[in-house]
Formats: sequence, structure tokens, C-alpha cells
Amino acid sequence: MLESVNELLGWDERALMPIKAGGYRAEQLTMLSGMVHRRATDPQVGQWLEELVDSPLAADPHSDAGATIRQLKREYEQRTRLPRALVEELTRAAVLGQQAWSTARKNNDFAAFAPHLEHTFALKREQADALGYSERRYDALLDLFEPEAKTSHVERVLADLREALIPLVEGCRESARRPQVEILQRHFPIDAQREFAVSAARAIGFDFHRGRLDVTEHPFCAGLGPHDCRITTRYDERFFSSAFFGVLHEAGHGIYDQGLRAEQYGLPPGSYVSLGIHESQSRMWENAVGRSMGFWRHFYSGAQAAFPQALGETKLDDFHFAINDVRPSLIRVEADEITYNLHIIIRFELEQALLDEKLSVADLPAAWNAKYQEYLGIEPPSDADGVLQDIHWSAGLIGYFPTYSLGNLCAAQFFETAEEELGDLSSLFVQGEFTPLREWLGRHIHQAGQCYTPSELVENVTGRPLEHASLIASLRKKLAPLYCFAPVGR
Amino acid sequence: MLESVNELLGWDERALMPIKAGGYRAEQLTMLSGMVHRRATDPQVGQWLEELVDSPLAADPHSDAGATIRQLKREYEQRTRLPRALVEELTRAAVLGQQAWSTARKNNDFAAFAPHLEHTFALKREQADALGYSERRYDALLDLFEPEAKTSHVERVLADLREALIPLVEGCRESARRPQVEILQRHFPIDAQREFAVSAARAIGFDFHRGRLDVTEHPFCAGLGPHDCRITTRYDERFFSSAFFGVLHEAGHGIYDQGLRAEQYGLPPGSYVSLGIHESQSRMWENAVGRSMGFWRHFYSGAQAAFPQALGETKLDDFHFAINDVRPSLIRVEADEITYNLHIIIRFELEQALLDEKLSVADLPAAWNAKYQEYLGIEPPSDADGVLQDIHWSAGLIGYFPTYSLGNLCAAQFFETAEEELGDLSSLFVQGEFTPLREWLGRHIHQAGQCYTPSELVENVTGRPLEHASLIASLRKKLAPLYCFAPVGR
Repeated sequence: MLESVNELLGWDERALMPIKAGGYRAEQLTMLSGMVHRRATDPQVGQWLEELVDSPLAADPHSDAGATIRQLKREYEQRTRLPRALVEELTRAAVLGQQAWSTARKNNDFAAFAPHLEHTFALKREQADALGYSERRYDALLDLFEPEAKTSHVERVLADLREALIPLVEGCRESARRPQVEILQRHFPIDAQREFAVSAARAIGFDFHRGRLDVTEHPFCAGLGPHDCRITTRYDERFFSSAFFGVLHEAGHGIYDQGLRAEQYGLPPGSYVSLGIHESQSRMWENAVGRSMGFWRHFYSGAQAAFPQALGETKLDDFHFAINDVRPSLIRVEADEITYNLHIIIRFELEQALLDEKLSVADLPAAWNAKYQEYLGIEPPSDADGVLQDIHWSAGLIGYFPTYSLGNLCAAQFFETAEEELGDLSSLFVQGEFTPLREWLGRHIHQAGQCYTPSELVENVTGRPLEHASLIASLRKKLAPLYCFAPVGR
Repeated sequence: MLESVNELLGWDERALMPIKAGGYRAEQLTMLSGMVHRRATDPQVGQWLEELVDSPLAADPHSDAGATIRQLKREYEQRTRLPRALVEELTRAAVLGQQAWSTARKNNDFAAFAPHLEHTFALKREQADALGYSERRYDALLDLFEPEAKTSHVERVLADLREALIPLVEGCRESARRPQVEILQRHFPIDAQREFAVSAARAIGFDFHRGRLDVTEHPFCAGLGPHDCRITTRYDERFFSSAFFGVLHEAGHGIYDQGLRAEQYGLPPGSYVSLGIHESQSRMWENAVGRSMGFWRHFYSGAQAAFPQALGETKLDDFHFAINDVRPSLIRVEADEITYNLHIIIRFELEQALLDEKLSVADLPAAWNAKYQEYLGIEPPSDADGVLQDIHWSAGLIGYFPTYSLGNLCAAQFFETAEEELGDLSSLFVQGEFTPLREWLGRHIHQAGQCYTPSELVENVTGRPLEHASLIASLRKKLAPLYCFAPVGR
């Protein structure tokens, strides 16, 4: 409950808080975090968990009780393994690092940020060593976001993905067909965007009696209670996709949050299982659903009515092609569904090299640019648009990036399985029927909470471990007719 | 700090929270309130205060240290005097009472609400007796909102006020001149209302870097931190005054809040002194400033530009008369500046009679209607528009109403003194100069915090105890030329 109060403080800080209120808000957050930490690391709690872990309650690790004991023990151990001084220094470095990053990015001055990044990686090494690992140091950090995931497995999956993506990207690049992307850059009045996005979010199942949509510069989703999920977006009058697909994405996160078992709120059976699985939900609604032809067969007449000036004379096929434009670009958050993964792979490879001291911070910009040349065929004109573009490393979030691509992979694999079980989903979407998919996700993924590890969950639901085949097949299926390259069977 | 977190939870509940999140929010609020209560009533705290109260630190009761010790001791005693069971029952009765009131008002069914009101007044008698008092039982409750105020004094001041108001109301009623109130009922687009109200709030000194304006059904002002003051309003496209004067009113509260000494936040020297003084600030900016001719000489061209359709052809004099319309009406929150006080006096008299068991709850509606007939010359057609119109009693807020009129009286007395010291304020307002008044209020009232009692503060600032003369004089001065009745000297 204290953590949920902290969530509200954090949400308000990002969404609404007056600018000068920041200092006191930091004090409030620190006070509550301290309270949570003291309670969560109370040796009495450790003793109780020690007793429970060998009790009949914990016999079935996948039961609510079993999962609760296992996960609370895991959290207790993670919390108590870190020396207090390291926790404090990590917090401090994250605050200072983000400030330094923000300025460095503005001034295109990597050198000014470099010492912070050095310090952060040194601390993360310390943290990884304190947490412990059996194979790779990176495992300890990855595990914080994707429990029980192994670097070696993620590496293999993403390497396979990369191999399979490159010919797709080339197929698009070499195609004579090109979408008219200017369609999305026409005038889209903001009130109409909001109304249209809300109607779509509601249609796919985001419950506005248990949530809200607000405006922030950096869109996000926050769960503030068992019936209180807040999503945000930003509007660009001259670009349709930014808010609309942003809302579908955050609504996808929100539908996961709203699908968790409310009566288990705050406990492992009522908590999301990993960032990768969370991202699978947002990506599925954004891409597999929201960029599909079936979805737009249902929504396009509404879009034309909402934006008569921009879309009144535009054909559905042209609009659909425009929202599925594929082209290598510099900035991750603006990348298309396909090349996005290459941005992630670059970060995943570089942050491992930095953690393992195979790459020095000084050599990072050059390494970054070389990878962009190799994987995407483009080179950043500046560090601001290159190695300085993301906030993550400055905030100490190492091991976080791969969960974005894991999310894409999971989304495709889940979606494929859902379609096997529910029949052709596209024809349901044409009818505006999104409930079958949402309920299927609820039954198989949301309601499971943390009763299974992420990889157990994937295997349980889809019958096989996570791999790249489903994503590649679905992308090929969608892109082949658009870009007119020969479809290849799986 | 815990209380400020609770303030955010409460603000969010009223301003934004999704409807189904209410249950969990109540649990969060209860948890934090419990934490605050346990800490604030810790016998160790009582012991410390016992030691401090006789120390040199407390020697000057008006110094920051002295006021802190005195007020913390006062709060400690108030908190510890109430048996825990009574506190819980008061909380429960307030929640259930408000629910019952809401339904009863909707159904115009006083009988359904009566048992709750009986119970509430029984509890409030118990509370007053537990808190203690020397003269009148009502004193103990009044003291919670207006520290150290005595019922006998308030009674005398309000009786004098009533006597002096009645001829004013009659003067307006009998006048041949009538304002064109339809001016304010034209079409005022909401976006333009928001922008215009924000510009006025900013001009009088509400700092939007340390605060925000949001929309709620019931407008209010909440302080969430030393630099975080949130005000709210509601917009009616067909009535200018609702949002505009509402914003000035709440901004007035906000300017008090923002004028408190930030470094003493949460401690008595950095806290508002009473509800009456708080209301004096909101009423002053709303009425003495916001309904003055000087204010509108400055703002009216902006209003015409903001609302060309509604006000483009309307003369300033006619607009100014319309916003100063006086006429007896049924509903307190919609009443004009003059008759408003009669609404308050009725409630003040009735709640005393109920508390002292001189009036039974069963006889309340008849007593209410008789007083409306006597003081305002009108009779409510239904209890919904009569005795059931306010939420206060249902929420256990007994002793709260008189602070509204005390606020009006203080506002006029402060304003008169400010004008004696700063010179003609109206001519400053014409120039858009609101800073001198705001800084004067800051120096004399805001920065004093709780270093003086409310009545000490009034005497310190104005040189005399609170009385009705300033309010009557200022009203007469404004109304006489509008309604053409003979001005009478003070």
C-alpha cells in the first residue's frame, strides 16, 4: 500500500506537478521509499519467509501461496544483498546521471556525460556482483527486469532475430513500392485525436472507470491501485501516429494492469511478471492489432469522420500502407515495428560490452556509430541523435533494453497462439470484436500474475520456448503484399 | 510530510481519480491517517512538549519556536482528549452521513437523513464535551476551525452584521434600478473562460509555477507541499461568474497558501491560522478586488476581447452592475456578496440550537424555512433546496459555517486597513497593480502563520477587534451608486 502511494506521487510528478514542487516531492518519495525499504528488509520478515519456504503452503510453486512465498523471498534476498551504501549511491548516481545526460544531450557533449556513465557502470558491476549470478554478470541485472532470464538465451534469440530481420528490411528498402507517409503528416486537430484515440482504447478494452488518459511529454502507464491505471500520451497536430499508436500501446499496458487479479493487488499473484511480458501486451495491441488491416476495416470510417480534412479523400489501403512504413532511422522511439528491434540489439550488445569492460566509455560513441552503420546502414550525424538519445543508461537502467524486443517476440508468439485457438482474429477485428482476444490474454497471461516465470509462461501458453519465428512470419505476412516481395513460408 | 502525502491522495480523489478506485483510495487514506495519528499521539511527544512548554524556547509565545510549541501542544491535547472509539465513530458517521445526505437530497427526503443527523449531533456533543470548553459547548467545535474564537463574540458580531445588512438588502430590493443580469448568461466559450481566468489569477499573484488550476464539480483549494498549491473550478458556458469569480476566490486561498513561509512548511509558523482568515483572503480577491470598478477598468477590454460575442457591445458600467447584483435567493453557494451572510447566520443559529438540544432534528426543516422567511423574505419550495442543500452537517462539520462570514468581515477590515496604509487601491487596480496589496497581505497575514491567534492577528493588523463596520461601509459604498440609495457615513 505504501508503494502504491509512492506510485501516485511519481505519477503526479510526471503528469501534473507544478515545476517548483519537485524538491519537496523528492523528499516525500524518499521518505516513503525508506519506509518501504525498512519494512521489506526487516529481519523478522526474512525469518518468516525462511519458515514459510519449507511449509506445505509453498509446496506448489505455481499456486498463489507458493508463488507469493517464492517471490517475496526472492525480493527479500535481492533487497538485503545490497549494502545500504550501494543502494544510496545508486539512487544518487541515477539522479545526477539523468541531470548530466539531459544537459549533455542538449549540448551534444558526450564528454561531459562520460564520467557519469563510467561511474554508473562501475556501480552496476558492483550491484551485479552483490546480487550474484552463475553464468554472466549481465544476468544479475537482466534478472531485475526479466526474472530468471539468461543472457545467453536472450543473445541467441536476438541474434536469430537480427539475421531474419535484415533481409526483411532489405526487401522493403529495395521495393519499388513506397507508402505515402505524408498522409500521416496532415492536419489532425488535437481534440479529435483525443476523442478518436479514447474511443479506440475503450473499444480494445481499456476501462476508463478504472483508469484515465492524460498528457505528458514522455508517455507511460502507471498502476496506482487495483482499480486505478493511468496512461498518458502526447499529441502532435501534424503527426497522427504519435498519439494514436501511443495510446494503443499504453492502453495495452493498461489492459494487462487492469487484467491482473485485483484481490491479489500488491502481492506476486496480482503483479505483472516481467517487463518483457508487459511490453508484449502493449506491442500486441499497438502493432499486431492496431496496424492490422482488420482493425482499420473497422475503424477507418470513424477516422475519416474524425479527420475529414486529412483522411476524407484517402483510401484505406494507402493509409494502411503509410502506418506500416518500414525504413531505417536514427531514433529508436520513432522507429518502425521492424527496424525497432535493430535499435534494441545495438544497445543490448553495447551495454554488455561496457559491463564486461570489453568496451570503454570513451570508445562508446564510435562503437555506437559503427553498429548503426552495420545494422541499419546509416550513421548518426551527432551524438545527441546517437549514443545520447536514450535516458536509460543515465538512470542506471542496464539490462532493461532487451525487454523491449523480448516483448515484440512474445507478442507475436502469443498472438499466433491466440489465433490458433480463437480462429482468424482479423475477421473479428473487422466486426469490432476485441473482447475474445482480450479475454484470452486475461485468462492465459494477466491472471497468472507471477505464478510462473516469464519463460515458463511463454512455454505454458504457446507450447514452446521464445523464438523469433512468429514475429518474422507475422511481419513477412503483413509486409510482403505491401512491399510486393515474395512471401516465404515459415 | 505524511499529511502532505494524504493531501495529494485527497486532491487526486476529488480532482481526477477514476470512479472505481474509490475503495482502495479510502484504504490508503486510512492507513496514512492512522500512521499520522499514532505518531502525533505518541506519549513521548507529549512528554517532550511538556518539557518544552516551560523552557526558554517557549518564552515568547509569538516567536516561531514559541508558537510551534504552543500549537503542537494544543494539537497534541486535542488529539489525545478524544477516545479512539469516538474518533473512529466520527469518521464512520461522516462517511455514512454524506452518503445518506447525497441520496436524501436527490430524493428530497429529509426523513431519511434525519437519523444520521441525530447521530452526528449526538457525537458532536460527545466530542465537544471531551474537548472541553469554559462557556458554551459550541465553543469547543468552533475552536477546531477558528482557534480561540468564542461563540458569544461571534454571535454578537454576526447579530450586528445582520441588523446592518437588512436595510442594505431592502435598499437594493426597493430600488428602481436593476442590473441586466442576462449579460452574464450569454455564451462564454469554456476555453476562453479558462484562459481569461488564468490570466486574472496570474495577475493578482497566484504563481502557476507553484500551483495548478484543474476542473472539479465542487471547487476547492488544496496545499500539497510548500510549493504546490492546487486550485479547481467548474465552467458553465452559459454563466460567466461561476468560473471567473470561483477562480479568483480559490486563487485568493492559493495566494495565502503560497504566501506562507515555505521553510516552516508543516509547522505552525508556516501554517494558515484559521478558516476565517483563510476565507478572508479568498473573499477579498473575489469581492473587494474582483467585483470592484478599478479591477474591471483594467480587465474589461481583455474580457471584451476574450468574449467578443457576449461582451463586445456591453458597457463596462452595465457589466459591473450585473456582477454586483443583490437579490435574496435560496441557495447559499449562489448567493450574492451581501445576502450570503444571511444564509450563514441562519445556519449558525440553527446548528447551535441543535447542539444545545433547543431544537430537535425533527423540527429542523420548519425552523429552517421560518428563518429564510424572516431573514430573506423567501421560503424554500422543498427541503432539497432548503435544509438539505449543504454537505457540511452530514460530514460532521459543525462550527464551520460562521467562518465564512467571519471571512467576509475580516476581508473588509483588512482591506480598509490596507487602503489606509497603501493609499487608494482602486487606482492601483486600474493600472493592473495588484502586487502592493498582495505583498501587504503577505507581510501582515501570510507570513505570520500561527504565531498569533486569529483575533490577535486581526487586532495587530487593523488596530481593533473584528466588527461589522468595515464590511457594511464597503458594501454601502459600492452599492449606493449602483442602486441609487442615499450613502450613509460610517
